[in-house]
Order: sequence, then C-alpha cells, then structure tokens
Amino acid sequence: MNLEPHQIEVIGYCAAFLTTLAFLPQAIQSWKTRDLSGVSLGMYSLFTAGVGLWLIYGLIIEKWPLILANALTFALALSILALKLRHTSKHRK
Amino acid sequence: MNLEPHQIEVIGYCAAFLTTLAFLPQAIQSWKTRDLSGVSLGMYSLFTAGVGLWLIYGLIIEKWPLILANALTFALALSILALKLRHTSKHRK
Repeated sequence: MNLEPHQIEVIGYCAAFLTTLAFLPQAIQSWKTRDLSGVSLGMYSLFTAGVGLWLIYGLIIEKWPLILANALTFALALSILALKLRHTSKHRK
Repeated sequence: MNLEPHQIEVIGYCAAFLTTLAFLPQAIQSWKTRDLSGVSLGMYSLFTAGVGLWLIYGLIIEKWPLILANALTFALALSILALKLRHTSKHRK
C-alpha cells in the first residue's frame, strides 16, 4: 500500500476513537452505580498497568494516536480502579 | 530518556502482554459458558473494529508489539462476536 503519512494517522485515530468509545460505557456504568462487584481487581490492575505502558511506548515512538487513546483510557481505567479499591476496603471493614 | 531500540520494544511487548492477558478471561468465560447476555453487541462491534484498525495501523508503521497484541486480541474478540451473533439469532427464533 502507498499511503501518505496523514492517511496513516487517520487510520490510527479511527482505531483510537473506536477502542476508547467502546471502553466508555464501562467507566460510566461504574461511576453511576458504584457497583464494582463484577470487576476483577487482578485483571483490572493488569489492564491499567498495560494501558499505562502503551502510553509510555506511544510517547517514546511519538505516535499521537497511541498517546491520546491510551492517555484517556488510562485515566478512565485508573478512576475505576480507585472506585474498586475503595469498594474492596469498605467491604473488609 | 535515552533508550536503545530493543529497550523500547521491550516496553511495547510488556504493554502488549498485559492488555492481552487482561482480555483473556473474558474470552475464556464467553467460550465456556456461552452466556453472552451481558455483552453489548454494539459496544463489542465497535471494540472489534477498533482492534482491527489498530492491527492495520501497527502493520503500516511496522511496530511488532502493536501487531502481535492486536492480532491476538482481534482473533479473540471476533470469536466472541461470532458467539454473540449466534446467541442473538437463536433468541430471535
């Protein structure tokens, strides 16, 4: 394929938009209901750490679709993880 | 930061490993239980399309961590989507 740089970026931004959009309802539902019982702490920690590393990787290779998508998803995932940790510590009391 | 190319790749592979690993339990549970009632068809279609575009983006910019992570996640997401579509069409009969 013979794509120009801005066409390549458009593909990356479409990918970023779709995967971030697909993640939003989870975040909104967790905030609204504060019901994190269905969310696995272990799996969510792995996911959040992974997204954080994708963000670092994106910053190093200087690819903006990767940086923007993972910065947003990392912020959302971290806030859900914080809710989950508060939820878990409450139930331990 | 002054990182060598292979160190940058290691960060990308760690990111790929973590986010793919975090996605596996969803796939395994969906296969085992065949219960896709909690999975939103619309959101899952967006996610699968997004991962497919990340794969294309990774192939174009030739970054192997992106290619491997998204090829595996795309295959898993597509198989869950296929189960969901079969599940949905069964319930319509």
